[in-house]
Amino acid sequence: MSPFSLPSPKGFKAGGIHCGLKKRKKDLALIYSEVPAAAAGVFTTNRVQAAPVKLTRNTIANGTIQAIIINSGNANAATGPQGERGALEMARATAEGLGIDIAKVAVASTGPIGKPFPTKLVVEGIEKLVSKIKPDSFSAAAQAILTSDTVTKGISRKVSLGNTEITITAIAKGAGMIQPKMATMLCFICTDLAISQPLFQQILKNSINKSFNCITVDGCTSTSDMVIGMANAMAGNPKIESPCNELVQIQEEFDLITKTLAQMIVRDGEGATKLIHVQVTGAHSEEDARIAAFNIANSNLLKSSFFGESLNWGRIMSAVGSSGIKLEPDYINVYLGDVLLVNNGQSAQFSTINTSRILKQKEINLRVELNQGLAQATVWTSDLSPKYVRINMR
Amino acid sequence: MSPFSLPSPKGFKAGGIHCGLKKRKKDLALIYSEVPAAAAGVFTTNRVQAAPVKLTRNTIANGTIQAIIINSGNANAATGPQGERGALEMARATAEGLGIDIAKVAVASTGPIGKPFPTKLVVEGIEKLVSKIKPDSFSAAAQAILTSDTVTKGISRKVSLGNTEITITAIAKGAGMIQPKMATMLCFICTDLAISQPLFQQILKNSINKSFNCITVDGCTSTSDMVIGMANAMAGNPKIESPCNELVQIQEEFDLITKTLAQMIVRDGEGATKLIHVQVTGAHSEEDARIAAFNIANSNLLKSSFFGESLNWGRIMSAVGSSGIKLEPDYINVYLGDVLLVNNGQSAQFSTINTSRILKQKEINLRVELNQGLAQATVWTSDLSPKYVRINMR
Repeated sequence: MSPFSLPSPKGFKAGGIHCGLKKRKKDLALIYSEVPAAAAGVFTTNRVQAAPVKLTRNTIANGTIQAIIINSGNANAATGPQGERGALEMARATAEGLGIDIAKVAVASTGPIGKPFPTKLVVEGIEKLVSKIKPDSFSAAAQAILTSDTVTKGISRKVSLGNTEITITAIAKGAGMIQPKMATMLCFICTDLAISQPLFQQILKNSINKSFNCITVDGCTSTSDMVIGMANAMAGNPKIESPCNELVQIQEEFDLITKTLAQMIVRDGEGATKLIHVQVTGAHSEEDARIAAFNIANSNLLKSSFFGESLNWGRIMSAVGSSGIKLEPDYINVYLGDVLLVNNGQSAQFSTINTSRILKQKEINLRVELNQGLAQATVWTSDLSPKYVRINMR
Repeated sequence: MSPFSLPSPKGFKAGGIHCGLKKRKKDLALIYSEVPAAAAGVFTTNRVQAAPVKLTRNTIANGTIQAIIINSGNANAATGPQGERGALEMARATAEGLGIDIAKVAVASTGPIGKPFPTKLVVEGIEKLVSKIKPDSFSAAAQAILTSDTVTKGISRKVSLGNTEITITAIAKGAGMIQPKMATMLCFICTDLAISQPLFQQILKNSINKSFNCITVDGCTSTSDMVIGMANAMAGNPKIESPCNELVQIQEEFDLITKTLAQMIVRDGEGATKLIHVQVTGAHSEEDARIAAFNIANSNLLKSSFFGESLNWGRIMSAVGSSGIKLEPDYINVYLGDVLLVNNGQSAQFSTINTSRILKQKEINLRVELNQGLAQATVWTSDLSPKYVRINMR
């Protein structure tokens, strides 16, 4: 988990330290913008929600924020009024330390669910952290938000928007309890772009539907998922206030960034050794395609055979058939990479030399052509290894 | 897998032999009634259905059958017209060997999906098997229908119905690809009871909804699931033709038999070391309770921690919350055995000595009280071990 360089967008500082929630690793992160930034957020749809999710949903609704404080090592979920006070205290200590309004501080927590929240420890950490943030220190923040992740996840892109250079920097975490539903694990995306808040929210939501909402490690949805975007306008571009070419360009950048981070999460899935692209085409609706793709992507049987690098296309057919969508099995074709496995619902003639070669790769494409409609969807999943169980048996 | 004794109902014979689909183990089973028997059947809802499922659904619709021929080692699923001819050939060879009508022969197959069906091998096996069936040989049939099962699954009960003694004998198989949906894995229930076909079908369906439809090993639904009942009336009881006390008594027996077999399947789940009863109470509807119970029962995270005999109630709360049903987290209580883990959505005071003792047991009760309505449901699941992956990575 070597730190890597992540340039800051203009006016952003970040940092991460160890405050005592984890044994040795960094466990407290702070992201700060010198000026208030347009805020966008998407949150878990799990009905059991962590205290910081409830708090930050309200904070983001105000439209602007200036800081995000995040701890790992404790999810502050299922912690009742004590946890709610803890989340509020995090916001208060951050606001006080930075000299900003408490209503402009977003709070996030990740880690085990149901442990009492150690407010004092975190508040003392925040008091130290506020003086340590600096530009180009997003990598320290990226490290401090990890839990069972083995890889730090971040990306920074520069975009020319007319004559203005825009920077977008994003960090994320997640390895287990991963099947975000209209929401995601933790991800923070900062940019110096000037954009209206409603358009910023729309861009974020669009991107998430094509990235974090298309991944699964274990079919489990977290209580703490959130993605927060901050756009502080310091790049100096003419503010984007209505649909335009620049908006399309930014949407494409956000799509690329969130998709990259989403795939990083699956690649680093607990015990995972492979990233599998599951594409379902020719469905009656996009919803049908998604349902079928997720049913394949969550099949423990299929994920186990991918780990073993063995071919078992019957498990693919069975997963499609049991997904509950309307379909005609005899129309189905299945491809592994460029090899046709199933032709009109039956075994195709193929060389196991070719399939073995593909199954050995770290990244595998699986395509199921339903041939009954025009809609399609892609979902990214990992394989299932004995290590997943060993990580989670504790 | 030592054979065990399973008495036959009057007029029934059964047997099982090795015909060559598996390396050494028995792989062909036959059940036969001297006289036509009222037939009942429930089949997989997977849209990809094995050839014998399609054939037997039609056969059962005739109302009476006299024989069931079953092979393991090949599911005859996703095998196209060749597979359909194979299933028909199995029925034909069985009818010919026994000297009965082909329309009275049910066919079932279980094993890997998508392999060409070796019709010749199976037909030759049937020609041998027809002369080897005898009363009280259900245990040989029970062995011959197994796939990855490590335990032979069967039960026989005698019931006094007025002055008549009725025998009910049932066998089942299943260890992986187990989450039957309004259907089940393979199970064959034979009785000498006299009962009208519609009532018999109703009894079977009622029982399945309370047993096989309440289990999961890995959330995967098979292409080959079926339960077939045969009632040949040879016990000589006054035929049951309308709702009566005897019908209630028989329903209770069927419930007990199918529930016992369903739990046998979960206990023998691939790689499983524990049977976990997941009960959800206080839901707005039975459907809600089932959805929540299945979401808990299919959580790889929770199943891994049960394997590790470690407590992680946050994963229970998270699974309930992400099940999609309406709920108020602050009303939820969670019990492990008799120990209260979660009280009104938060950690209760409990002794880890008590929870450790419970987690070490082979059979564990988990109860989630939603406290928002009056409906409840129970689902049975297994733990998830590295062995599950090793079994299925091939």
